[in-house]
Amino acid sequence: MERLSRLLDSIEPADPQWEDKAWQRLRSQIRPRGSLGQLEFIGARLASIQRTLTPALQKKLIFTMAGDHGVAAEGVSAFPQEVTGQMVYSFTRGWASINVLARHVGADVRVVDCGIACDIPPDWPVVHRKIGKGTRSIAAGPAMTRAEGVEGLLLGAELVENAFEQEGYELFGTGDMGIANTTPSTAIVAAFSGKPVAELTGRGTGIDDKSFAHKISVIERALAVNRPDPADALDVLCKVGGYEIAGLAGAVLGAASVKAPIVCDGFIATAGALIACRLCPRAADYLFLSHRSHEVGHAVMADLLGIRPILDLDMRLGEGTGSALAMNIIEASARVLMDIKTFAEAGVSDTGH
Amino acid sequence: MERLSRLLDSIEPADPQWEDKAWQRLRSQIRPRGSLGQLEFIGARLASIQRTLTPALQKKLIFTMAGDHGVAAEGVSAFPQEVTGQMVYSFTRGWASINVLARHVGADVRVVDCGIACDIPPDWPVVHRKIGKGTRSIAAGPAMTRAEGVEGLLLGAELVENAFEQEGYELFGTGDMGIANTTPSTAIVAAFSGKPVAELTGRGTGIDDKSFAHKISVIERALAVNRPDPADALDVLCKVGGYEIAGLAGAVLGAASVKAPIVCDGFIATAGALIACRLCPRAADYLFLSHRSHEVGHAVMADLLGIRPILDLDMRLGEGTGSALAMNIIEASARVLMDIKTFAEAGVSDTGH
Repeated sequence: MERLSRLLDSIEPADPQWEDKAWQRLRSQIRPRGSLGQLEFIGARLASIQRTLTPALQKKLIFTMAGDHGVAAEGVSAFPQEVTGQMVYSFTRGWASINVLARHVGADVRVVDCGIACDIPPDWPVVHRKIGKGTRSIAAGPAMTRAEGVEGLLLGAELVENAFEQEGYELFGTGDMGIANTTPSTAIVAAFSGKPVAELTGRGTGIDDKSFAHKISVIERALAVNRPDPADALDVLCKVGGYEIAGLAGAVLGAASVKAPIVCDGFIATAGALIACRLCPRAADYLFLSHRSHEVGHAVMADLLGIRPILDLDMRLGEGTGSALAMNIIEASARVLMDIKTFAEAGVSDTGH
Repeated sequence: MERLSRLLDSIEPADPQWEDKAWQRLRSQIRPRGSLGQLEFIGARLASIQRTLTPALQKKLIFTMAGDHGVAAEGVSAFPQEVTGQMVYSFTRGWASINVLARHVGADVRVVDCGIACDIPPDWPVVHRKIGKGTRSIAAGPAMTRAEGVEGLLLGAELVENAFEQEGYELFGTGDMGIANTTPSTAIVAAFSGKPVAELTGRGTGIDDKSFAHKISVIERALAVNRPDPADALDVLCKVGGYEIAGLAGAVLGAASVKAPIVCDGFIATAGALIACRLCPRAADYLFLSHRSHEVGHAVMADLLGIRPILDLDMRLGEGTGSALAMNIIEASARVLMDIKTFAEAGVSDTGH
């Protein structure tokens, strides 16, 4: 707990003076004021995060955090639990969606075993940091102990901090892999928002009407059994979260602590980001939401964070796929800030509009 | 007119058999069915356009069509007409927004003088094809003759066809430059939709309340004076369009005629695309809309075309900036189709969801 407190205390807000300087430049460029919309907000935010008018985002890394969930035994997912390990194998071979999209945007992918149920062979190119062999079922009690939750948070933070300090990565992304993990993520947004579970529940990877009603009842049971305290984000994480969700939250805290931008993927990664920003609201200054997930509860998460997702492409895959695509837009925003000339530089008539 | 008829007749629909084959592959990949949302639709469409499961989009070219508008004299824009030529100079120097964003996505930019009011020095690296020195004011009569409209359409088509056949470009984008050109674009969408001008008019590059009311009255006058026939897209183009809008429409027709994908920018470029697809509805098979413009009439254009814009970033700049950003997503969609392994290839459990 002391290390977690130190981590949270180390997080400073982004610098509004650099944001102002960025807006001054953006508003003097040879185009109508405000005409690049969200690219300008992202560019100005990057300036305030990195404390510079020339944000550097060349080296990009996506952490795909993997973990299993005891609640999978309740039949809330369309896929069997073995798929978590099988997909991790695919990630290590470069065969999966995240590999394809990360390659496309020039980002590296690092897969982390935060708590997969099966054994992952030690020679697989995975960060082997299994906290447990899948969480306990949230429908019956807490997913994990508080010590395990803290371990997951510190793990995510440490991985980002080391990649930043030792390897020079400049832009981070998060993604998830874990069969049944829309269930804990829905429980998390229900706990924080107080909204009815039925309004927040989606079909995850694709379940039928009967399974859907069952999923809602399982999440309602998880909340009734655990009574997570929305004022205590660690309580919410440990009671109805998951090992990979702890890692995803920790990654956001780690990025904020080293003043690096981080973009989070869809429903599960945003659940992690929400935990992070409830533990330390200043961390939100460093956070971008990559896309508006097709999962219904995601819009509520974005509202709770007060952050507008960058893309809206009906994606609901996870793995970090949204983070990868959004990295290209974030980089474009940095180029806008840096490279478009000003009216004075270019000799174009400025009417002040 | 005979050359235009031949161009329109040469356009074949995209191939639904290749679209089906693409969906078969997309549905067998190691991820839940449909989980990549719009990327899947774009990928399948690329397959049907290029008649292949391995769409090639490496060589990318954006045409920025420039022209002036007699209606600028009515005071509908916040910027003076000289800015068209000044911005074209900036494009040739690589200083402007489109240069920055095209470089970011690896696309080339070709600037076309379709009808700028001022003389463009012959040594500027611009395609010199001035149809006239700005159109006549649509508030007083037709913007151009039918012969000029056809010339602009054939110009845009020829440029894309030659770039495809002689230079090997595989993905095209469109963009515009022309002070006051939101005014004719609004008149075009009003003519086709029959909706009140006030519901379709935006503030272009940024005008105040009084100028805004004036802009609406100018567009209403243009429609009353010209009475463009919505069943005759060439009539709409020539009466209330513009030289660069003719070029933008022609580019879409040219891409469709050589079976190449083309992505159009925001409000003005989509007005051109709308003209193209009214002249030949089959051309829409080859067309992507890059983004949802902040200009209010753009959503109506997208509805008339029946195409969902890829991005939604509150942009309202033009030049081809939206096309550039969307090219990265279109390329990502091709990679998704080609590179993500199938369940059978990867040995992952497939539950059919």
